[in-house]
Amino acid sequence: VTPEERLATLGYDIQAGTIGVGAVIPGVVVGNLLWLSGSVPDRNGRTWRGRVGEAFTTEEAVEAARETAVNQLTHAKTVLGELSRIRRVVKVLGMVNCVPGYAETPQVMMGFSNLLVEVLGEAGRHARSAVGLQALPLDVPIEVESIFEITPEAVG
Amino acid sequence: VTPEERLATLGYDIQAGTIGVGAVIPGVVVGNLLWLSGSVPDRNGRTWRGRVGEAFTTEEAVEAARETAVNQLTHAKTVLGELSRIRRVVKVLGMVNCVPGYAETPQVMMGFSNLLVEVLGEAGRHARSAVGLQALPLDVPIEVESIFEITPEAVG
Amino acid sequence: VTPEERLATLGYDIQAGTIGVGAVIPGVVVGNLLWLSGSVPDRNGRTWRGRVGEAFTTEEAVEAARETAVNQLTHAKTVLGELSRIRRVVKVLGMVNCVPGYAETPQVMMGFSNLLVEVLGEAGRHARSAVGLQALPLDVPIEVESIFEITPEAVG
Repeated sequence: VTPEERLATLGYDIQAGTIGVGAVIPGVVVGNLLWLSGSVPDRNGRTWRGRVGEAFTTEEAVEAARETAVNQLTHAKTVLGELSRIRRVVKVLGMVNCVPGYAETPQVMMGFSNLLVEVLGEAGRHARSAVGLQALPLDVPIEVESIFEITPEAVG
Repeated sequence: VTPEERLATLGYDIQAGTIGVGAVIPGVVVGNLLWLSGSVPDRNGRTWRGRVGEAFTTEEAVEAARETAVNQLTHAKTVLGELSRIRRVVKVLGMVNCVPGYAETPQVMMGFSNLLVEVLGEAGRHARSAVGLQALPLDVPIEVESIFEITPEAVG
Repeated sequence: VTPEERLATLGYDIQAGTIGVGAVIPGVVVGNLLWLSGSVPDRNGRTWRGRVGEAFTTEEAVEAARETAVNQLTHAKTVLGELSRIRRVVKVLGMVNCVPGYAETPQVMMGFSNLLVEVLGEAGRHARSAVGLQALPLDVPIEVESIFEITPEAVG
């Protein structure tokens, strides 16, 4: 069973995107490490706008975090071609757009972290920080960036 | 003299924790690099709650940062077994829960950075950013995540 | 044409700084990776103080981000000696000191990202997050930290 098939079972159909021509790209590989650009929850025409603790409850933000994980895997697929090249998730930085003093950023980020484990199994477990920020692009409630260990591309 | 012995001399007795079964773990090793999850200052039953510049002065926050460094080394010990496997501290991201416009995040973070040098010597020096955030888990005043270079586990 | 010469053509004359003796240093190399400490826009006696969306417009902040990129390359030169040792920019974390809900952090960070491409060409393209924070050191409007892939120093 490929990660893409597990995603499909969970109701998520993802397609590799394009790298684009600008200065900022979805991810960069160095050896067996893949650094991904931050992902936000907007997906399939559904947009998320506003701060957690105000526009969104913690429960709603967990769902936004889950959508963000699907988008982060889409970044990975865009760079790698196949998600089976992911050996493990290494490190995740979860950034929640929230009201001052909002203390439940780790609970929100479980939406992201658990999706990775559902799709990748043991390989989805990772080191993480989950923190609260003042502002995010487009006023989305969450942005997450990750580092994955990967199988380097075959030579020859 | 081991890092654990230096910590003991400074009054800090640390014990390896457990990795746990959840999606988020204290650290992940890839080759000679260890990525650590964020640590907070709560330790030995002492809790820290509130923002720097409001609940805590800069001087108090320096002490919180020092406690956070002890916890970050505890994460490392949990993953590595022995702190002597640390070759050097590579990169530190210090995140301070503070009032808007609080400008002394680098001073706060010296509590963290100096503890690493006291324990690890030259190997404790590192690249760093020290910034101010809107919110942290449990409303702690500081959270820090690090990357260490390590000696990979012996083979055979 | 060296990166230093391209910088000069753009009007930026940079000189390697000194590593210093403190716990925090401009950058750390592990193998073919260079982790840089965060840079701020202050340069050549010009200081930037205040939040984007209040003290600075987005357009002004783009210029601050560009100055920050020059300072980040100065960090790299301090560690590497020559910028020609940069193989590529891997990952950038752009942190903007802004008013709550400020949604244009990616536009601000294009000042940083585009300067890297002007100086390094294709090798300047990178993965990135661009987010809004509560507070930065000295109340500067932007701080950025990066990871570069480099040519390891020649042996012998």
